[in-house]
Amino acid sequence: MIERIVRLAVLVATALALMLMASPASAEDGYALWLRYQPLPQAIRTAASPHATAIIAPVAPSPTIGVAVAELQRGLGGLLARPTPVSHVVGRGAILVGTPEELPAVAKLRLPLGRLGDEGYLLRSATIDGKAVTIVTGSSDIGVLYGVFALLRQLQTGGVLDRLDVSSAPKIRIRVLDHWDNLDRTVERGYAGESIWDWWRLPDWHDPRYTDYARANASIGINGTVLNNVNASPDILSPRFIAKAAALADIFRPYGIKVYLSVNFASPIKLGGLKDADPLDPQVAAWWKTKANEIYKAIPDFGGFLVKANSEGQPGPGDYHRSHSQGANMLAAALAPHHGIVIWRAFVYTATGGGDRAKEAYDEFKPLDGQFADNVVLQVKNGPIDFQPREPFSPLFGAMPKTPIGLEMQITKEYLGFATHLVYLGPLFQEALDSDTYADGPGSTVAKVIDGELDHHKLSLVAGVANIGSDRDWCGSDFNQANWYAFGRLAWDPADSSRAIAADWAKMTFSLDPHFVGPAVDMMMLSREAAVNYMTPLGLAHQMGTNHHYGPAPWVDDLPQAEWNPVYYNRADARGIGFDRTATGSDAVAQYAPPVAKRFADVETVGDKYLLWFHHLPWTYRMPSGETLWVSLVRHYSLGVKQVVDMQRVWEALRPYVDAERYAKAATFLEIQHREAKWWRDASIAYFQSKSHLPLPAGEVPPAHNLAYYEALRFPHAPGI
Amino acid sequence: MIERIVRLAVLVATALALMLMASPASAEDGYALWLRYQPLPQAIRTAASPHATAIIAPVAPSPTIGVAVAELQRGLGGLLARPTPVSHVVGRGAILVGTPEELPAVAKLRLPLGRLGDEGYLLRSATIDGKAVTIVTGSSDIGVLYGVFALLRQLQTGGVLDRLDVSSAPKIRIRVLDHWDNLDRTVERGYAGESIWDWWRLPDWHDPRYTDYARANASIGINGTVLNNVNASPDILSPRFIAKAAALADIFRPYGIKVYLSVNFASPIKLGGLKDADPLDPQVAAWWKTKANEIYKAIPDFGGFLVKANSEGQPGPGDYHRSHSQGANMLAAALAPHHGIVIWRAFVYTATGGGDRAKEAYDEFKPLDGQFADNVVLQVKNGPIDFQPREPFSPLFGAMPKTPIGLEMQITKEYLGFATHLVYLGPLFQEALDSDTYADGPGSTVAKVIDGELDHHKLSLVAGVANIGSDRDWCGSDFNQANWYAFGRLAWDPADSSRAIAADWAKMTFSLDPHFVGPAVDMMMLSREAAVNYMTPLGLAHQMGTNHHYGPAPWVDDLPQAEWNPVYYNRADARGIGFDRTATGSDAVAQYAPPVAKRFADVETVGDKYLLWFHHLPWTYRMPSGETLWVSLVRHYSLGVKQVVDMQRVWEALRPYVDAERYAKAATFLEIQHREAKWWRDASIAYFQSKSHLPLPAGEVPPAHNLAYYEALRFPHAPGI
Repeated sequence: MIERIVRLAVLVATALALMLMASPASAEDGYALWLRYQPLPQAIRTAASPHATAIIAPVAPSPTIGVAVAELQRGLGGLLARPTPVSHVVGRGAILVGTPEELPAVAKLRLPLGRLGDEGYLLRSATIDGKAVTIVTGSSDIGVLYGVFALLRQLQTGGVLDRLDVSSAPKIRIRVLDHWDNLDRTVERGYAGESIWDWWRLPDWHDPRYTDYARANASIGINGTVLNNVNASPDILSPRFIAKAAALADIFRPYGIKVYLSVNFASPIKLGGLKDADPLDPQVAAWWKTKANEIYKAIPDFGGFLVKANSEGQPGPGDYHRSHSQGANMLAAALAPHHGIVIWRAFVYTATGGGDRAKEAYDEFKPLDGQFADNVVLQVKNGPIDFQPREPFSPLFGAMPKTPIGLEMQITKEYLGFATHLVYLGPLFQEALDSDTYADGPGSTVAKVIDGELDHHKLSLVAGVANIGSDRDWCGSDFNQANWYAFGRLAWDPADSSRAIAADWAKMTFSLDPHFVGPAVDMMMLSREAAVNYMTPLGLAHQMGTNHHYGPAPWVDDLPQAEWNPVYYNRADARGIGFDRTATGSDAVAQYAPPVAKRFADVETVGDKYLLWFHHLPWTYRMPSGETLWVSLVRHYSLGVKQVVDMQRVWEALRPYVDAERYAKAATFLEIQHREAKWWRDASIAYFQSKSHLPLPAGEVPPAHNLAYYEALRFPHAPGI
Repeated sequence: MIERIVRLAVLVATALALMLMASPASAEDGYALWLRYQPLPQAIRTAASPHATAIIAPVAPSPTIGVAVAELQRGLGGLLARPTPVSHVVGRGAILVGTPEELPAVAKLRLPLGRLGDEGYLLRSATIDGKAVTIVTGSSDIGVLYGVFALLRQLQTGGVLDRLDVSSAPKIRIRVLDHWDNLDRTVERGYAGESIWDWWRLPDWHDPRYTDYARANASIGINGTVLNNVNASPDILSPRFIAKAAALADIFRPYGIKVYLSVNFASPIKLGGLKDADPLDPQVAAWWKTKANEIYKAIPDFGGFLVKANSEGQPGPGDYHRSHSQGANMLAAALAPHHGIVIWRAFVYTATGGGDRAKEAYDEFKPLDGQFADNVVLQVKNGPIDFQPREPFSPLFGAMPKTPIGLEMQITKEYLGFATHLVYLGPLFQEALDSDTYADGPGSTVAKVIDGELDHHKLSLVAGVANIGSDRDWCGSDFNQANWYAFGRLAWDPADSSRAIAADWAKMTFSLDPHFVGPAVDMMMLSREAAVNYMTPLGLAHQMGTNHHYGPAPWVDDLPQAEWNPVYYNRADARGIGFDRTATGSDAVAQYAPPVAKRFADVETVGDKYLLWFHHLPWTYRMPSGETLWVSLVRHYSLGVKQVVDMQRVWEALRPYVDAERYAKAATFLEIQHREAKWWRDASIAYFQSKSHLPLPAGEVPPAHNLAYYEALRFPHAPGI
């Protein structure tokens, strides 16, 4: 009888719960990101529950501790499927959340927090008055918040809460997302809807999404956000928009996230009514000083300015025959009294025609080493061109030891199939970070350049161009969320493993089941190489369609600026293919440290990855595999298509582990990716065959259409332009 | 013991359920619209449950019956908080869902379906084999679906399911939403994010939102959707976009919703490469015929074309000195074999300078009466200008008896404060529908013109310019959803009451509690009059800011086309204010039927609502109230502001009945509305006082700033342009 009644009650309640889960609002629509906090498998809950009986928080918590406790309650409530009370009495299984200053019981333990810095955290299983407890602490409240997210991740990824002794501190000081969001809510290179910043209804309306954005970023250690596009409207510095930015800063502050703004160098003219924006004009400097004071009045912890100057038509100090450092230092002087910084982009190239775009940033910036003010960081893209599927590292890394060099990587997939291609960028980010510049001998990796270790800089920065938009799933696909996640994790610790990060993400986002995690992570780890293969194998680059960068267009040769044309990069002709950047060509290799230069310059040592980036080779060149270059090129395209088919098969096999909505979305996107991978292969082969005049290798299917067909394709209304 | 265990089990389950409800994904974020299906109060559930024991559906249901049954299951599951099984055995309390053809048990009842037409429904409590059951039926599957939504509404609004005998059929045949959505996902006059049509990822990716859009529309009887902006890109007719539209049509079809497209009259040139688009050029006609065939191959039930021609720069037959009817009939001939229609807009005006824009559509179209093909409907905006807060009805209604006249109303609030002003448009829609044209004597209302009754047309149409976007709450605010809802309900039955519709909506969207419903509905019913008062009282119109139409700009006089300037409409000078449209002025009154013309022409009978629309009067004119016109004008502005304050107070008092998220959003928007209402009042008074040179009436607070301040305000990056 008892049993029946209980069963009935549970049945009714379960039906109710299921109904609520089945309602559209609680569908697995991707909104929750990796913070889903769905109930853990029973065994893990049983093991963890005794170690999460209550949360002990400071009696007068700061806003940051407040959100940390709320997050822990929310996370534990979901993961353990039962509420966890907040208490002020330390009992067995309690989780203590706070700094030693805030929690006397923690202070007594004299934990080793010295090496954690301003933002690090410590998770420690300990005993207080004979009671086993868990400590989540740090030297600062934000460290404690990061600790809470680390503790939750521990649980989310299937770990237990006993015998904890984890400490971690970020290696890079400024870890920011760059939003290329315009003030009309369009997003340059955005493929996930429009800007999440609802500028028009700010500062009044605070979309709950802003808070969830801050939660997600804090969970991976991102501590800054540049709200607007580097192609900046002067209006961002108008009082109306400063008030809007201030409202966002207020929301983000408890989460340790500072607001930065991209500024237009000509703002003193366009907004201030001055006659010029010459950085040596005292009126101009005064205008910026006044503007900085105005901003800091509204946003006391404002991070600083990001500047794209004298690049792709943007105004800059060059308009007045001043150097980048003169421009940056003038802005830096305005921000310095408030401890703000200038993030100055090194992404410049001019219409040189006969030159080599890959060399231009180095040529322009290296001579300025040592000339920048202390609060300026130079933000350099990972490669010397522009966020291609694969590029060698920029020669600027390691070349300017007297200047803090920041790294800019692209999370949004401008050149990687937009939202619908499954391309996990962890390996791309890691490849960039692990590149050895040899600037100070072997082991002088890009990571060590940008974290300040190599040249002893305190100011260090890594920036990711955000892939976030108004789409319900934030990033245009569920798998794109992994790129946001991996960026944050690698920004915190560039030595982390992109595979381990993928595994964490997959567990939190989809399922702890090892039958899911293994194949899903393998698929993710394969995906970037697949994209390189079907788009730009063997060191090719910049072969995408004009303006939108969607699909293949290796034939384009009629754009007014030489470097905008894919033919400029592939240099395919009857003889061969590739860009000679050795001494017989542009000699871009000479910009690298000698061991690197030597390796890149030698066709025997450069390797497949960068072969055609550095060398123009005959179609009949013999690859190490014994195949000719032509055969190898075709095989790479075909391999890329096959790898996408493999990914489709993997995903089909994972269907039992994934909810219907997210399964169907990824499956649909993989179909699109497959179709477009074939298109990339076919169009590229059709074009290059028109140059090589060589037959297709045995077993290779000819392109589905002739070259004219591919050349005629047009895509009006493509997103992100 | 038993009790304790049960209590525990229920407790755990309730905690789980609450947790699921509290998770961010299931927040009251407005996504569910009026189809929330939250559990009803216990008393209603107890009363209703015996009448919803099972759903009896046809054994081989059509897609429409399939979605009807699914919706009923979903609705009952939520409202009654327990599952309702689908069965094929009629038991006590069953709900039978299907046409008599599909359900023999229903056929035997010989229900009176004759007058229901193609789309009507019948809900009937009946007895089958001695068992009390409920019948949801109609002559067609779509009628059955409408019946399911009607049954659910019955429950949602607190009704019970016994003794039902409800039948209803739509009065107007075509009830469409016009989306002014561009192919790059921007939305002209959209204030709720970007287009819900994710064109780029169509036709592959079917956002679940498309299905929810169809559900919402079907629930209020909307049976058509024009997917794209009337300022149409020719690309909509490219094969790529036809495929995208076809994917949407496939999703919408089970819900009885047909897809229509706005077309660019110059498509044969821009897309087809022809040298002209002359409707009398056989090549042009052939191009359209071929294009229509192509569309119908992809979308067999395609609705037809909506055309904005020779209006605001759009191409049209006038470019070739052909008439609107020649243009429309050429398109109609291409669609006729497929039973498609042409919806031709009458919104035209030219740069006449000295003329009267309010007269132009009538002047241009009336002479064409009788010249349009059978499958053409002329779509006329409710007023003669352009969706102002208040306008008299367009004189075209009733003036073209040989032509089917459709009504176009604006749901999006282009001239009514965008998304953030709470303005319930039910009364505006009703005012338009109830306007008596006297075309065939008294009682010749606009509703009777457009439903075809007056002039015996079978083709009838009402269109609403959608306020739907990618915002989570669809419409930019929860209260804006009421305007979508009211449009649909009035399109189904123009004789319905906007107050009753508001009550239904408020109950379904927020709460059944009469303490909520009463004040909320009063507030909604007041809101449109408030907006008229603080924006354009006493018959003023078109006083909004240039291009964006945000905020007051009565002083603007420098736009190149006369009719774009607010001064053109207010005609305020030292002597007085208003537009003389009597015989001494533009004589626009003469376009109305004599009894209407007489009433409008006489300053004694025209009434406050249209006073300055039809008359230029001295500032010292004595109003019926005894006040001067100047005093009355100022008082109206102030009243509008006060009414917004009253709305704020009402909403504050309703806080206990509303969830936190939706409460806060509406409260914030009311703050914005209050601030902007004051701005409207102050700026308008400042300007008109600069003309009248009269003192403010006693007790009136002077404007917060001087006129120059208001004139200098600029709003770059305003939405919806």
